[in-house]
Amino acid sequence: MIDSAEVTLGDIAAALGGELIGPKSLDIARIGPLEDADAATISFLANPRYRAQLAGSSAGCVIVAPALRDEAVARGAAIVTPDPYLYFARLTQWWARRVRPAAVTGVHPSAVVDPGARLGAGVSIGALAVVEAGAQIDDGAEIGAQCFVGRAARVGAGTRLHPRVTLAFECVVGARCIVHSGAVIGADGFGFAPSREHGYVKIEQLGAVRIGDDVEIGANTCIDRGALGDTVIEDGVKLDNLIQIAHNVRIGRGTAMAAFTGVAGSTRIGEGCTFGGGAGVVGHVSIADGVHVSAHTAVLRSIDKPGVYTGIFPLAENRAWEKTAVTLRQLPALRERIRALERQAAAASDQEPGAADANGAENTP
Amino acid sequence: MIDSAEVTLGDIAAALGGELIGPKSLDIARIGPLEDADAATISFLANPRYRAQLAGSSAGCVIVAPALRDEAVARGAAIVTPDPYLYFARLTQWWARRVRPAAVTGVHPSAVVDPGARLGAGVSIGALAVVEAGAQIDDGAEIGAQCFVGRAARVGAGTRLHPRVTLAFECVVGARCIVHSGAVIGADGFGFAPSREHGYVKIEQLGAVRIGDDVEIGANTCIDRGALGDTVIEDGVKLDNLIQIAHNVRIGRGTAMAAFTGVAGSTRIGEGCTFGGGAGVVGHVSIADGVHVSAHTAVLRSIDKPGVYTGIFPLAENRAWEKTAVTLRQLPALRERIRALERQAAAASDQEPGAADANGAENTP
Amino acid sequence: MIDSAEVTLGDIAAALGGELIGPKSLDIARIGPLEDADAATISFLANPRYRAQLAGSSAGCVIVAPALRDEAVARGAAIVTPDPYLYFARLTQWWARRVRPAAVTGVHPSAVVDPGARLGAGVSIGALAVVEAGAQIDDGAEIGAQCFVGRAARVGAGTRLHPRVTLAFECVVGARCIVHSGAVIGADGFGFAPSREHGYVKIEQLGAVRIGDDVEIGANTCIDRGALGDTVIEDGVKLDNLIQIAHNVRIGRGTAMAAFTGVAGSTRIGEGCTFGGGAGVVGHVSIADGVHVSAHTAVLRSIDKPGVYTGIFPLAENRAWEKTAVTLRQLPALRERIRALERQAAAASDQEPGAADANGAENTP
Repeated sequence: MIDSAEVTLGDIAAALGGELIGPKSLDIARIGPLEDADAATISFLANPRYRAQLAGSSAGCVIVAPALRDEAVARGAAIVTPDPYLYFARLTQWWARRVRPAAVTGVHPSAVVDPGARLGAGVSIGALAVVEAGAQIDDGAEIGAQCFVGRAARVGAGTRLHPRVTLAFECVVGARCIVHSGAVIGADGFGFAPSREHGYVKIEQLGAVRIGDDVEIGANTCIDRGALGDTVIEDGVKLDNLIQIAHNVRIGRGTAMAAFTGVAGSTRIGEGCTFGGGAGVVGHVSIADGVHVSAHTAVLRSIDKPGVYTGIFPLAENRAWEKTAVTLRQLPALRERIRALERQAAAASDQEPGAADANGAENTP
Repeated sequence: MIDSAEVTLGDIAAALGGELIGPKSLDIARIGPLEDADAATISFLANPRYRAQLAGSSAGCVIVAPALRDEAVARGAAIVTPDPYLYFARLTQWWARRVRPAAVTGVHPSAVVDPGARLGAGVSIGALAVVEAGAQIDDGAEIGAQCFVGRAARVGAGTRLHPRVTLAFECVVGARCIVHSGAVIGADGFGFAPSREHGYVKIEQLGAVRIGDDVEIGANTCIDRGALGDTVIEDGVKLDNLIQIAHNVRIGRGTAMAAFTGVAGSTRIGEGCTFGGGAGVVGHVSIADGVHVSAHTAVLRSIDKPGVYTGIFPLAENRAWEKTAVTLRQLPALRERIRALERQAAAASDQEPGAADANGAENTP
Repeated sequence: MIDSAEVTLGDIAAALGGELIGPKSLDIARIGPLEDADAATISFLANPRYRAQLAGSSAGCVIVAPALRDEAVARGAAIVTPDPYLYFARLTQWWARRVRPAAVTGVHPSAVVDPGARLGAGVSIGALAVVEAGAQIDDGAEIGAQCFVGRAARVGAGTRLHPRVTLAFECVVGARCIVHSGAVIGADGFGFAPSREHGYVKIEQLGAVRIGDDVEIGANTCIDRGALGDTVIEDGVKLDNLIQIAHNVRIGRGTAMAAFTGVAGSTRIGEGCTFGGGAGVVGHVSIADGVHVSAHTAVLRSIDKPGVYTGIFPLAENRAWEKTAVTLRQLPALRERIRALERQAAAASDQEPGAADANGAENTP
């Protein structure tokens, strides 16, 4: 997939720094994992647990931390840097800029851009995109093909909307964000007044969505607009695909959520939290900073101290699960039976002193 | 976000009714919650549990029920009405009509509308929408930008498709519905004949989707077309974002489902049910009217009486959860051990009459 | 919904084979289930468990296996075939071809097709679709309205993308696939290097997605591109709606997944597996061939032998569930109490020999 246009170790070190130990002239054709590398591959060792893979790897060059310098050098070229995984991330970014064509700036002739929209410098508007009146696209932002940017919405500088993103009216995305295809920002929150006579009566969602800087939003993820105030996603939040953020939620800076995470209305999530796939949080609660919720876990109440929280039914072969599930329904009854046994045992031990002391001392002759 | 074009209490009462106690001339700039209100805010008190907030609120006007008239009036202007939450809902609707531009009627020049489509009076077709042959758009309906309305599909009067909705061929949406961006109505149901020789052989989905009146469908929600008959969503159903309704499901009138609810094929859901986020129902079962399924709960069988049903693994700190999960696997074995203890105790009590009577009466001198 | 253009039993048998017992001239207007059939309905009996429905059905013709020939013929016309369900699937395909208009070949004038894209013979490109430079659309493929096919992507022969599918740059879909509306193939995988100083630093996803032949992908399903290598979906895989396949996952041939299934990064799923709705698998594990994971079940480790695996909290009325949930938290403590009782009982039985032998033999006079 990756165009192997020639690049040398020297080019990489010149662009990204680090201490290069080895020939600047070595050709690098790809980035790859240690176990699947050849002489034209640059690889990395981020987790010292995998250091055993180092000696056996055929990688042309390995990015390592200072502690592994000697081991790495013993086998070939190396780039030594304090955080090899971060270096690897930056290498992928540099590589992508090298092999992927830049977006063509300007407005594609098939796009429908309202004359009342304001476009910054170096903006790219893709084929068949729609940008409505009053929308503002800041400098260097890229609106992909078939995107929709509603009335008075705003896209920050350097932000990229991949093809077919919907950004509803009045919603704001900050700078340097990435939004993937199919994401819907600013659909109505799910709010109704139940009424005996009229069924559910719609509460118009009069707020919007405000997204900070450096946020990434996955494919087909939904962030609903607020009912009265706004739904807020703070700087540096990373949302995977197919996530649901309900109206008036606030997600704190640097929190990351995996696919299928759902957050119900008006809930406040702290900073630096993580949510595993399929986790869910009910509405109107508050989650502290530094809370880590495991996959498939439902959070039904506020959590006020950091930590790892889990609620997953353990997997079993179906037959064993059936037994466990049936017994689980009897659990309160089983507890009563244990209590009854304890009462009985207590009564018995009153009768025969010493029996409850267990070690059977009285039995010794 | 909300344009604070001037409006007075008198304007609101004239439009929506209720008993206004206070100056008609009071300027209202926003709708807001009691705890976050100023003199230009109109607020409401729907739940008497929050009446303590009333006295301390700075809201210019509060919408209250008759029982709270005196308390409300003691602090300032009020609108007295039997159902304040319903009044609030209507107020948001009135407000939205006031501050949001109406859709431009007519067909946007960039839309691709087949000459064989039938458009009612006052219809709006947005930019880059596609309306295929034989489709019918009834009076006053609004087809958002980039929507797709397939061959022979029908959109009822006054219904609004937000930008980028897909309504597949032959599917029908009733009157006064709202469908949010990214929703897919009428994709194929998931049906295959498994065959040793050919793998899964597709069963063409020959039915369609029929949606009643006053239905709301959330962003990126999917409703599959039926295999032979139709998938049916009855009047007044409200579906949140990212919901999956499989082929040949029927959802009864006035049922509401939160995000990530999934209903498998041919299942029948009653009227007036609610489903919490991430709830799921297997195929080919029947759920009675008035059933409320909690979030993250899997329903594996029919439910024939109304009530609240739950199946959620309780959240715990991860270390505590690990202990519980390990012990849970032993639960059937623990039950056997309780039984064994009971048998032992019964045998012992046969031997020593009275011991099982617990209170240790024999011990009294 | 289904156009009842006239067709006879003879037409069906001529097209699809099987042994027709009954009049070739019988008019068939629809395909339908046994219990809801009339004289113009062709129905089928795939599961012998439902044979009781056979005698009472008014279907004009029933498709049955040889074992049911006599029963079927006793009530009217029949088509006898070794696999009635497979025959039914083929009948629906034949029926769909008959009643649904074929896609118009050629490029719709509103589509935006780069001159550098390569289009095979008999290709259809729908209204407002975008096909970028270097993309290749093989013979007979159908690109629906408003689809996006990115730079250097490839769509195999005879494959159909329904309206509004996103196929990102360099991603490949094989032959005879079906992709439903809203699916996003090739969005970035969710990969970041966490850094104290810079927060999450993006790892550019340099791989792509490779999908085999005869794959079906549901509405709004997401398949992310790989980080270094590719995400791979093998031949004959069937994915329902709203599924998440993360970067560098591999899904084995003929595996089927129901809606809301999520597979985290780098996990390898075997061949011939099935996943119930809402099932999830963590990253970096391996699932053997022939594994069947129940709905709503979280898989947190590798599974190395075929079988059915489940982890679902059993449903209960809410009050009963609350009791169970509370008791569940005490489960490790209950186990300790059982142990204590056992120790006590063991001590007691040491004291009174025979008591633990249960049958109370000593009590017999």
